[in-house]
Amino acid sequence: MGCPDRTGIVARISGFLAEIGGWITEAAYHSDDETGWFFTRQTVRAGSVAMSVDEMRARFATEVAAEIGPETEWRLTDTGQVKSVVLLVSKESHCLVDLLGRAYRGELPARVDAVIGNHRDLEGLVTRFGVPFHHVPFTPDRKPEAFDEVARIVDGHAPDAVVLARFMQVLPPQLCEAWAGRAINIHHSFLPSFVGARPYHQAFARGVKLIGATCHYVTAELDAGPIIEQDVVRVDHSDTVSDMVRQGRDIETVVLSRGLRWHLEDRVLVHGRKTVVFN
Amino acid sequence: MGCPDRTGIVARISGFLAEIGGWITEAAYHSDDETGWFFTRQTVRAGSVAMSVDEMRARFATEVAAEIGPETEWRLTDTGQVKSVVLLVSKESHCLVDLLGRAYRGELPARVDAVIGNHRDLEGLVTRFGVPFHHVPFTPDRKPEAFDEVARIVDGHAPDAVVLARFMQVLPPQLCEAWAGRAINIHHSFLPSFVGARPYHQAFARGVKLIGATCHYVTAELDAGPIIEQDVVRVDHSDTVSDMVRQGRDIETVVLSRGLRWHLEDRVLVHGRKTVVFN
Amino acid sequence: MGCPDRTGIVARISGFLAEIGGWITEAAYHSDDETGWFFTRQTVRAGSVAMSVDEMRARFATEVAAEIGPETEWRLTDTGQVKSVVLLVSKESHCLVDLLGRAYRGELPARVDAVIGNHRDLEGLVTRFGVPFHHVPFTPDRKPEAFDEVARIVDGHAPDAVVLARFMQVLPPQLCEAWAGRAINIHHSFLPSFVGARPYHQAFARGVKLIGATCHYVTAELDAGPIIEQDVVRVDHSDTVSDMVRQGRDIETVVLSRGLRWHLEDRVLVHGRKTVVFN
Amino acid sequence: MGCPDRTGIVARISGFLAEIGGWITEAAYHSDDETGWFFTRQTVRAGSVAMSVDEMRARFATEVAAEIGPETEWRLTDTGQVKSVVLLVSKESHCLVDLLGRAYRGELPARVDAVIGNHRDLEGLVTRFGVPFHHVPFTPDRKPEAFDEVARIVDGHAPDAVVLARFMQVLPPQLCEAWAGRAINIHHSFLPSFVGARPYHQAFARGVKLIGATCHYVTAELDAGPIIEQDVVRVDHSDTVSDMVRQGRDIETVVLSRGLRWHLEDRVLVHGRKTVVFN
Repeated sequence: MGCPDRTGIVARISGFLAEIGGWITEAAYHSDDETGWFFTRQTVRAGSVAMSVDEMRARFATEVAAEIGPETEWRLTDTGQVKSVVLLVSKESHCLVDLLGRAYRGELPARVDAVIGNHRDLEGLVTRFGVPFHHVPFTPDRKPEAFDEVARIVDGHAPDAVVLARFMQVLPPQLCEAWAGRAINIHHSFLPSFVGARPYHQAFARGVKLIGATCHYVTAELDAGPIIEQDVVRVDHSDTVSDMVRQGRDIETVVLSRGLRWHLEDRVLVHGRKTVVFN
Repeated sequence: MGCPDRTGIVARISGFLAEIGGWITEAAYHSDDETGWFFTRQTVRAGSVAMSVDEMRARFATEVAAEIGPETEWRLTDTGQVKSVVLLVSKESHCLVDLLGRAYRGELPARVDAVIGNHRDLEGLVTRFGVPFHHVPFTPDRKPEAFDEVARIVDGHAPDAVVLARFMQVLPPQLCEAWAGRAINIHHSFLPSFVGARPYHQAFARGVKLIGATCHYVTAELDAGPIIEQDVVRVDHSDTVSDMVRQGRDIETVVLSRGLRWHLEDRVLVHGRKTVVFN
Repeated sequence: MGCPDRTGIVARISGFLAEIGGWITEAAYHSDDETGWFFTRQTVRAGSVAMSVDEMRARFATEVAAEIGPETEWRLTDTGQVKSVVLLVSKESHCLVDLLGRAYRGELPARVDAVIGNHRDLEGLVTRFGVPFHHVPFTPDRKPEAFDEVARIVDGHAPDAVVLARFMQVLPPQLCEAWAGRAINIHHSFLPSFVGARPYHQAFARGVKLIGATCHYVTAELDAGPIIEQDVVRVDHSDTVSDMVRQGRDIETVVLSRGLRWHLEDRVLVHGRKTVVFN
Repeated sequence: MGCPDRTGIVARISGFLAEIGGWITEAAYHSDDETGWFFTRQTVRAGSVAMSVDEMRARFATEVAAEIGPETEWRLTDTGQVKSVVLLVSKESHCLVDLLGRAYRGELPARVDAVIGNHRDLEGLVTRFGVPFHHVPFTPDRKPEAFDEVARIVDGHAPDAVVLARFMQVLPPQLCEAWAGRAINIHHSFLPSFVGARPYHQAFARGVKLIGATCHYVTAELDAGPIIEQDVVRVDHSDTVSDMVRQGRDIETVVLSRGLRWHLEDRVLVHGRKTVVFN
């Protein structure tokens, strides 16, 4: 939940939860000095509340959100519902194998409903995990049609997350908007360094001593969306571009999987160009 | 604040704060599944509450703590009050210089009231920073007397923290008890590895690839007190013991300064052998 | 190569390589003060030497190794030869999926020739990657027979590495000896902390602020073999044992894959209880 | 030493060292694929060579460097000679206190000969450590004169390193050139992110999840000189700009001290826009 900050917000929320018997298992708050906005995330044990999720949602709307004010943005999610994820890939397999492996062992709080590739390279891998693979070729002259087809497949699943797992194609503005807050990209640099193409080549040319990866929401401005997670790994003069590519894969993999998990657990609140991550 | 967990605690605290007009600038909560204990720390903007700290303390005691239950442990601190720190040192200067430097630039939320050394080596350094230095020799035959003298000097300042900044002497049980929750040590290993003497020699002999440091509360059991903070640095086969000692200093310094700051900002709650750190 | 240190060793090796026209692409040296031992690893571009690997080996033996002295231990490997790896697993899939994924994308300089599991849980996963899976049940009363069967399968491949990828069974001394310098284990703690069973439970109970993983050669003494690689990840009071298990998986995965790659690239020289890693 | 790569270079160097009885205690090599350049650094035990440093320098010039070719760049340094450092500061004390503390405990392989400040704020601190402090005011209308004065003081010491320890003034091109390869800056961002002024404000505005610091050689192009060392620290949504400033100080301090030590130990070879760091 996010709203303009003032006194009494926590009291109202926690008063409501206490009244309905809600046992809070996790709670986090953040007051943003710069924007004067207040953010909170609370986890309530399902068994402690004697009403349906819908009923709770209705009561929260009138008894809390409406009281706090009309600008209040909030969401109440049932963690018992399995979420849906669709992956967009190209030829690189590392993030894909990692996410399929996590889904396989039940670590990702979601089901991978489909994988869409602009090449067929990863088809065999995906189908072995029992996940449908859709091949949508992206020849230069039919990119708009290809994106329409991608959108059709994605929207058929109404997924909670559309993950660009090294997809290598720039989403058109209308899809950025349609999937705002749901489209997640992994960029293979420590943004804002090395925006755009071939970041490892840029990093090598500059002689940096650490390379990184950035998981962020996709927006119309390239590589400028709200950052969810970043991490780095040390390199030195003996590392060639291909060494960086290899080491970078491990960082991309772990950064994307962390960012995606936090997103799926509703730990990420977007506000303007930035995120609040209650992890 | 810590107490046995149940529903309604947050509601009671936040209701109280809302009633007295308290503007919460920072709030953190933790429910410990293992012990069934609940912990919270809240920061309220001083100007938003129209009463003295003492009055607020009195009202909190009756209107909140007493209602929640007799096991409730709580503390209300005025951050406007400058805290007091006493440092115990031996011959190693790195933690000392770092803490004096932080106090000098106003980064440590405390005043260093005195430094006690069992050798005179660091006297000149300390006095240059305008801090009183007390030399208390620790010859083998007069350790109890030496500790009595240390205790007399320390207790004269009633400090909020007694910091063993590479003091190299084991506190006797009665001082561990007298200063429980206030005596802070920096151990030069990643505990529980390499308890006791010469941890870098132990690390070298074992061939570990990372060395570390641990900031913990002092208890009667050697190097077994509740851990506040730890960190590590990478080493390799080319590092000798003295290379480890040199690199270890940087980690000791930063781990101690972090742990001490969190302690002084009342971010550390001790429960049993462990800490909750709201940082 | 390793040998007692004295002047002129590098001159002899590099003189030999210059004479046969060898273009050195990578060279690393280490003089160990403690043991008085000298270590080196050199990579020579294959095309620059006009003789077979066997001929080069023969000449190195007489012209270099014999001259330096009888204690010299050395190895000359043709990186054009694909190495062989056998994996031992139980029920945990994270290291297995990661290594199969790396082999799939050609990142591991080796072929996974077989996977042996003491349970059938991971069979489907392994066969989907086209790798043979052998189920060898480990009931308490037939452990020796089970290990005999494991040894028979492993030795049938004469692998360059036998990887205990969360195998959860302690190798008997005769296998530790037979596979000395080739059997690699991933232990889910930052050794020497938390030796033995359930390290995450031990870490949770102690309240450490970082958890780790250790990749090491297997020796007869439990969790005490030469360490190849270690790393850590930050945890805090809000992390339960199962949170630690989940975060630990990522560290185990990356530490094992690094250690195994270095081993397969002949970057790891064992000396006594320790390793020299030229990475 | 650096030179165009070809076979036989190592043989020639090590042959020479073996001939004069040199006991190599540390040796590192790097062949740069991109530029076709070869780099090496070797440490020889002083007692093992029966000639003066000057004589060794003369023989190396004719017997090695001249033979390898005219493009060879090399340097032979006597580690017995104490090096000289001059620090340029402004108002921030953290890097200054850290470096003075390291010099005090003998950890920095150099003597701090002078500190020059464009404000008087740090004068007391510097003189307490027994180091001369020079105040050179930088009013907008006399910057050229001020830099002339700084240059006069610096050049009077012919220092091995001129350290801009948060100096906050941009060196004019003629000083960048005069001190090329000796002037070292600490920039408070992970370059190339956030070039120029107020990098922590830029980092806050962008919402990055890690902030960093970069130690680099000063060149005429702002913040674009060859990078010696970088490191980062994790931040999150709850960190304000001033929290970042505080946490950044610790990273700046450690990154500068590492980079400076490597420079003073002749571990850093500059080649074009990049560095080879043999650490």
